Amino acid sequence: MTTVAVAGVGLTVFGRYLDRPLKNLAAEATLAACSDASISPSEIDFVAGSNSLAGLLTGQECVRTQTVLAPLGIRGVPVFNVENACASASSAFNLAVRAVAHGEARCALAIGFEKMSHPDRTKTLAALTAAADLDEAQPEDPLRSMFMDLYAEEVRHHMENYGSTAEDFARIVVKNRSHAALNPHAQYRSPCDIEDVLSSPVVTPPLTKLMCSPVGDGAAAVVLFAAEQSRIAPIVAASEIRSGTRLPTHDENDAVLVARAAYEAAGLGPDDVTLAEVHDAAAPAELLAYEDLGFAPRGEGSRLIRDGVTSLGGAKPVNTSGGLIARGHPIGATGLAMVVEGVLQLRGQAGDRQVEGARVALVQNAGGWVGEAPAASAVHILRTP
Amino acid sequence: MTTVAVAGVGLTVFGRYLDRPLKNLAAEATLAACSDASISPSEIDFVAGSNSLAGLLTGQECVRTQTVLAPLGIRGVPVFNVENACASASSAFNLAVRAVAHGEARCALAIGFEKMSHPDRTKTLAALTAAADLDEAQPEDPLRSMFMDLYAEEVRHHMENYGSTAEDFARIVVKNRSHAALNPHAQYRSPCDIEDVLSSPVVTPPLTKLMCSPVGDGAAAVVLFAAEQSRIAPIVAASEIRSGTRLPTHDENDAVLVARAAYEAAGLGPDDVTLAEVHDAAAPAELLAYEDLGFAPRGEGSRLIRDGVTSLGGAKPVNTSGGLIARGHPIGATGLAMVVEGVLQLRGQAGDRQVEGARVALVQNAGGWVGEAPAASAVHILRTP
Repeated sequence: MTTVAVAGVGLTVFGRYLDRPLKNLAAEATLAACSDASISPSEIDFVAGSNSLAGLLTGQECVRTQTVLAPLGIRGVPVFNVENACASASSAFNLAVRAVAHGEARCALAIGFEKMSHPDRTKTLAALTAAADLDEAQPEDPLRSMFMDLYAEEVRHHMENYGSTAEDFARIVVKNRSHAALNPHAQYRSPCDIEDVLSSPVVTPPLTKLMCSPVGDGAAAVVLFAAEQSRIAPIVAASEIRSGTRLPTHDENDAVLVARAAYEAAGLGPDDVTLAEVHDAAAPAELLAYEDLGFAPRGEGSRLIRDGVTSLGGAKPVNTSGGLIARGHPIGATGLAMVVEGVLQLRGQAGDRQVEGARVALVQNAGGWVGEAPAASAVHILRTP
Repeated sequence: MTTVAVAGVGLTVFGRYLDRPLKNLAAEATLAACSDASISPSEIDFVAGSNSLAGLLTGQECVRTQTVLAPLGIRGVPVFNVENACASASSAFNLAVRAVAHGEARCALAIGFEKMSHPDRTKTLAALTAAADLDEAQPEDPLRSMFMDLYAEEVRHHMENYGSTAEDFARIVVKNRSHAALNPHAQYRSPCDIEDVLSSPVVTPPLTKLMCSPVGDGAAAVVLFAAEQSRIAPIVAASEIRSGTRLPTHDENDAVLVARAAYEAAGLGPDDVTLAEVHDAAAPAELLAYEDLGFAPRGEGSRLIRDGVTSLGGAKPVNTSGGLIARGHPIGATGLAMVVEGVLQLRGQAGDRQVEGARVALVQNAGGWVGEAPAASAVHILRTP
């Protein structure tokens, strides 16, 4: 099996682009990734593309990736439109990695693109509900996301059992906002304090509005080569994805199982991870991820945020990009935006938010909800060559 | 690279199931394929699932495959939701083949499921339009399919240049209906004659209603193993897929290029093909496929249908299942239904429509329309072990 390297990355500024076409966002990220990899788009010989909401928001289904790539001259190659809710872009990344690892592609593109902004906010929220099994979950209130209710339910268990607090979750928001302030691609770059977070409107207890990732638009792309073609590009040490493995305990959930598989594939462990981008769709999910990924023992995640361990300058910075909460979460782009941040850090190109001595970057992404379990859970591990 | 075998196939009867849930159709095909492969669903360790219309017709997006598989206990494995319009199921098949070929999966499932029936027919037709780039093509009349206009335009060129006639296309319908009469899984099993076809309502000249594939519902699934695990299962000799390679000539189009790649990968040529399932979404497309696949020289496809070469009992039977026109075309299931027919023929289990001495079955499937080209074109070649 060929070792895979990330040869190029591209990312739009995440934000609200009501008047900017989705194709335009996708083209910007794709061309940036190609330019970064020093290739022409016509050299790409495999594409996995992800988008989650355009079907319901614009009516465009079936061939979404082709519609954004054909104008760039990327034709005559396998193109797969891939979906897995908020883990769609991780799924596209995983397929592109497989293609290069097995010698099927010389130069694979994974592209995620999403435009959630819609003049009618209820349409965006309804589209998000389609990431769950609609037979199981119809939201009672069309103005709220059922996923925030799921996150809240999960974290209430953690609060009761392990003493995590709303202040801890607020600290995560404050941290991620402070990281985003250093990231020119982030959606929310203004800092905030704990009081701001706790006093923002309650979404569902204990979540307040500032603890929840925002609606946003953007695109992220990576170009993958065989590692032997580049001596400097970061390596994909592992890319693992699973659907709905959740067991009936909170201790051994999907993220735990997928992370274990990824660590094993990479021959690395939690202590080797220099920095991580994790799926903070709601702030408490980041705290749970500390434990799921082995950065802290079960029940002790709060310590990491209280002690600044996961802040820039701490021993294990998490969500240096600002995370879903502050960099933004255009859902079909998110998994790849996480990879882009990992690559920039490993290349020493993360500017003011650079983690010194970054050698191993972990990405954790999850999506959807079916049968009491996440529909997809992904962990990728990147390392310096 | 591991040689891949189709260890099990499952197919629902195609038809109109207004009151039958999509999950139920998908479960039937999946369980049938598992039973046929003598495995439990829990043994499946990789899934690629395809559906094209549920997003727009039911609102279910993002995690469609998980919603149909979770109830069957298929969990904890990679699941990819894949789309490529009418070639969605071929795309799922291709990904599942790759997974087994490269040793990533021991037992992969490719599943296609579609329910096109909707109480409001305009909704189904609008959903079909989403298989094209909506910026390029908005149908003027919501009661017609733009794809039939595309097929008609293409075949008018052939009629003018090579003398193919509406009677030829009618003969294809008559043939495929006569094949479907022998297929208990087909949607339209009543035979018809040339006059019936020519006198049915004009859709767009030269296409009449009976020349067009119908709206229908159904599911198809295959289970794939490494060939070494079975001495009797048909082998996947090639599985090729490309997006939008169309050149500005009618002679060297996507199907030609993809077929060439598949023949090369299989080490076989058109003369080796015993039977084929081709993408007769409209009857003339089958005639063009004869030429694209090398069964007849360019311009001479009509001879094959006039001489009965492609009828059961002829030298190279095509669409023994009844094809899209008569077996039916629930679009997210079609590519896999074609593979199922090929496998049944190669196993000598095609009943009254069995092709004697079937050794090589070719499947040709296409989907979508972006930038003046099909969004995806696929050719798979199956052979006896």
